[in-house]
Amino acid sequence: MTSKYKNVYIDEVATVVGPYEFNGPLSKRFDKHYDDMYFGLDSLESAESKLMVDSFNLVLHKSKKEKSDIDVLIAGDLQNQIAASSYAAGELDTPFLGIYSACATNTEGLVIASNLIESNTCDNVLVSVSSHNMVAEKQFRNPTEYGGPKPNTATFTATGGASCLLTNKKSKVRIESSTIGKIIDMEQNDPMHMGRVMAPAAAYTINKHLSDLDRTIDDYDLILTGDLGIVGKEILRDYMKSEYGIDLKNKYNDCGVMLYDLDKQKEVQAGGSGPVCSALVVYADIIKKLERKELKRVLYVATGALFNPSRVFQKENILSIAHAISLESVE
Amino acid sequence: MTSKYKNVYIDEVATVVGPYEFNGPLSKRFDKHYDDMYFGLDSLESAESKLMVDSFNLVLHKSKKEKSDIDVLIAGDLQNQIAASSYAAGELDTPFLGIYSACATNTEGLVIASNLIESNTCDNVLVSVSSHNMVAEKQFRNPTEYGGPKPNTATFTATGGASCLLTNKKSKVRIESSTIGKIIDMEQNDPMHMGRVMAPAAAYTINKHLSDLDRTIDDYDLILTGDLGIVGKEILRDYMKSEYGIDLKNKYNDCGVMLYDLDKQKEVQAGGSGPVCSALVVYADIIKKLERKELKRVLYVATGALFNPSRVFQKENILSIAHAISLESVE
Repeated sequence: MTSKYKNVYIDEVATVVGPYEFNGPLSKRFDKHYDDMYFGLDSLESAESKLMVDSFNLVLHKSKKEKSDIDVLIAGDLQNQIAASSYAAGELDTPFLGIYSACATNTEGLVIASNLIESNTCDNVLVSVSSHNMVAEKQFRNPTEYGGPKPNTATFTATGGASCLLTNKKSKVRIESSTIGKIIDMEQNDPMHMGRVMAPAAAYTINKHLSDLDRTIDDYDLILTGDLGIVGKEILRDYMKSEYGIDLKNKYNDCGVMLYDLDKQKEVQAGGSGPVCSALVVYADIIKKLERKELKRVLYVATGALFNPSRVFQKENILSIAHAISLESVE
Repeated sequence: MTSKYKNVYIDEVATVVGPYEFNGPLSKRFDKHYDDMYFGLDSLESAESKLMVDSFNLVLHKSKKEKSDIDVLIAGDLQNQIAASSYAAGELDTPFLGIYSACATNTEGLVIASNLIESNTCDNVLVSVSSHNMVAEKQFRNPTEYGGPKPNTATFTATGGASCLLTNKKSKVRIESSTIGKIIDMEQNDPMHMGRVMAPAAAYTINKHLSDLDRTIDDYDLILTGDLGIVGKEILRDYMKSEYGIDLKNKYNDCGVMLYDLDKQKEVQAGGSGPVCSALVVYADIIKKLERKELKRVLYVATGALFNPSRVFQKENILSIAHAISLESVE
């Protein structure tokens, strides 16, 4: 489902990261960083909530707004029962809608928020996501301390919190349209190769977006997928061409590849993942380039592998989905 | 956050239940039932997805619509990563937004859907929820086979799937307004007494709804909470009076109490719970009474305990939230 918007602007964004992300190429462009993985708290799970709380407090500070100015917080994360978001939302004390779309959560939130702004239902909607490498490892695979080796197709869940405040007040960057994706099942079941699981979902949504709006990739300066990683990125290029006849040319990149220095940071294997991965790259890098008009229009396609360990142990496939938003520099 | 709607109608609803619910007082008002807990499938988890698939297929059949007529499916459930919904959504093959608000998921979905209809973004939005007693027991407490005894404050996760199709086409029942709740933390940590956890969230949302719209409970024929159960129901009555000075009089009931015969069905302890609990009661009973004008206006307040076992083992409290929609009989 594709919608166009006339009145949805990005007021402020903020990013908070852990040590691995701070050691990557976007380093000092993040608003805040921590040097360890606990941030002075007792549990990794509550540390993740702190990343989200930090990020929305930074947005409030930058936008000179109070908690009471926020009509609604829309948030999600990878913890079971999206617990990182719920505990963080308790600190913000505003109306709260919890969402889940794995690593596509950020664009799902931005789509719902855009509709609330465009329809004049809300003036200020905050969209927040988080992920934490050690929380995700523990919950979906094994605790990090277990030290299991991984294939080079595996991605590395990013540690961070990211928030975006959407308003109807004109700013330098707007959300000009969105496409809600659908469930894609390519009969994949390897949680160590999520790029392969998600690439067809990204391809479906990119093609759907372009065909619904009667556009080509030449209408965009950049097509940006969420977290396919270096292997999944090449799968998407091939699949786009073979399945939809679309050549992504030199217009395509992937946030999972951009977040880390894959040559130096060998621990991240094929690249970054997690709901915060694409949010960190888009908010710390892409939005700034749109503000400076170095980019005019970007299609941001966050990709989610809806991995539930129980269902995969029961021999079901890993499903995937991707939701897209089109970001535009405002004249 | 409270919003009013002029143009949001309930086209069709459908309910599918397991044996415990079919043995309850609403028995034959459900559209379909199963006599066991597996429905011919290999796992309880996939059985839960089948409940949701059945329910939306029934809605499509009743409304004489095709899958392709649905603009978007909004769905959620209690499985980690809302897996019941994701696997069900794969069968519907439409755009999909995943949401999570524990047992308040159904009203969260109806609120988001109402905004999409009211703003003319969508013509047909499907909202679906499910829960399955044995899946929830296994994931949140212990497998049923473990046979652990429970206190009489414990609630019983309902087994069922429920779907509602919202449209802009006039029908006999409409959604006239909604209130999005916020996180409430009353320093509770007993997953065997969720009524106590959630009652203050329901009270907050009911009071917020009434004060935002400058109404009293006399503007409603019925205030209906989601799944506080028989103990939580009395806590809400007391708390509403002491905290907000509101007497719920003879206008109040709870879906968890209405779904089962608490005198005869001793296994359900304090009553029903789970995202589908309130949806089953509202769709099988309340909507029909609104259609027949036996009820004119009902405030449906689904209540969610955002219980994450890891966080509670780590000594954090169980948070809660409640979202409300006001249902109105159309002249």
